[in-house]
Amino acid sequence: MTRLPKLVVVGVGLIGGSFALALKSRGVVGEVVGVGRSSRNLDEALAGGVVDRAVTRDGPWTRELADADVVLVATPVGELPALFEAIGDALAGHAVLTDAGSTKQDVVAAARACLGDALPRFVPAHPIAGTERSGAASAFATLFEGHRAVLTPLAETDDDALARVRALWQACGAEVVAMEPATHDRIFAAVSHLPHFLAAAYVAELSVRPGSGDLFGMAGSGFRDFTRIAAASPAMWHDIGLANREALRREIAAFRGALDVLDAALRDGDGTALTAMLDAAASARRAWGTRPTGD
Amino acid sequence: MTRLPKLVVVGVGLIGGSFALALKSRGVVGEVVGVGRSSRNLDEALAGGVVDRAVTRDGPWTRELADADVVLVATPVGELPALFEAIGDALAGHAVLTDAGSTKQDVVAAARACLGDALPRFVPAHPIAGTERSGAASAFATLFEGHRAVLTPLAETDDDALARVRALWQACGAEVVAMEPATHDRIFAAVSHLPHFLAAAYVAELSVRPGSGDLFGMAGSGFRDFTRIAAASPAMWHDIGLANREALRREIAAFRGALDVLDAALRDGDGTALTAMLDAAASARRAWGTRPTGD
Repeated sequence: MTRLPKLVVVGVGLIGGSFALALKSRGVVGEVVGVGRSSRNLDEALAGGVVDRAVTRDGPWTRELADADVVLVATPVGELPALFEAIGDALAGHAVLTDAGSTKQDVVAAARACLGDALPRFVPAHPIAGTERSGAASAFATLFEGHRAVLTPLAETDDDALARVRALWQACGAEVVAMEPATHDRIFAAVSHLPHFLAAAYVAELSVRPGSGDLFGMAGSGFRDFTRIAAASPAMWHDIGLANREALRREIAAFRGALDVLDAALRDGDGTALTAMLDAAASARRAWGTRPTGD
Repeated sequence: MTRLPKLVVVGVGLIGGSFALALKSRGVVGEVVGVGRSSRNLDEALAGGVVDRAVTRDGPWTRELADADVVLVATPVGELPALFEAIGDALAGHAVLTDAGSTKQDVVAAARACLGDALPRFVPAHPIAGTERSGAASAFATLFEGHRAVLTPLAETDDDALARVRALWQACGAEVVAMEPATHDRIFAAVSHLPHFLAAAYVAELSVRPGSGDLFGMAGSGFRDFTRIAAASPAMWHDIGLANREALRREIAAFRGALDVLDAALRDGDGTALTAMLDAAASARRAWGTRPTGD
């Protein structure tokens, strides 16, 4: 693809930083300007070569948008309405805008409400990649390789903007798929948001018990993997939980139903019911583990 | 330690096979005889050099115990009463016996009921190691290295047997700790059995939904790690669930309480409560992840 002279990344964390590193390492973008709240994180982004220049959000940062070719917003989703308000007025006429939010209906609603004339050049995106770490120092160029990136374009989205944003995520190594925002939020409530909140609720509950040190001290590799996501950014997940709370609460209700079945089987010593649940889980998880495209 | 001429492993799976490989690779044991239900798994154990000889449980396998120096029982815990009944009558007078069950009160009760005069030479053990794989082909000599092995000796346990079994698990590379069976079962209900059954209930519930393929197809690395343990042996976890069901049901009740708090916070849009839970989880999990002894 044509080299794009200037990328602006608002929120230079794991995702925003990795997007910048991926596109720079492939020669797709020239200068990268990082925009952030904390000069400490931006200093790390500069020191690590993640961005070439950095400006904080308490200054006149929107000036950087006037000659930008690509803008990525990769902050917690709760910040998007205010950021879209600022970006809508300042975005260069030729630029495209994308995001990396884990929820899409709220992001689309914020874009419709706040982006004004820039709306057709916004292509909502959710790269299905991440680690439990956060901050510019955790970014790396290959984060998206072999992972999916979901785009949820609007009826208003410009065809050219869609093609360019698709090409950018593909240039990061992602396999791009498209779906409706509501479909996205329903699917990710089930396979991403629910597991996250279950792991967090579990670790939080253990951590406040008297004697929790004795418990954590005996935990092994099953605990390690089951709870890894509970270490992720609370600010990011706070926003995801509230943004997608209706779908998430439906998932919690479905999970409670499964927990009721489990508890009844244990109460009744019902080995047949227990085996049915364990067999269904092991079969499905083993089949998933051997699927062709891995994450 | 003195080389022991003969080890008998009843249940040559991941744990039993790895115990054999670890002790053979360190020259601690001479001949290893595998005892199992399925000749297919035993054939794999022979082919992989995990055992030197193999006998099935439908033959006169207890003859192998008459000149054994060490016997490990590493089957699902539900099989232990019948196995102990057979072993108690046949165990050589100088031999020590240990197990690898993930629950200990039921194993101790089975030993007291079934082992007879061999009881003082039985040292209950639970190595805190494993993967989601099972069978002899998944065994490897370093499985226990750097992991804990919990011993729950009885008042009746012979001092010499305890010292010898401790030395065997240490020879496998494990860090040995001792505790009461009830303490063991309470702790592992919280940090091992509950996470396992939560992951299994979650995957089982997803797997029976219409359109579950679309859900699994979008799952990423968070799902991968959260659900890894759901692929483990259903037979093994059926027995653990029933054996430790009282402690496990108490853990399920505590977890339901945490889920109630989460659901109320989402329902009310209570960001403060959500942040409190996410912060507690992230702090505790990050602190655990940096502890000196890892699993």
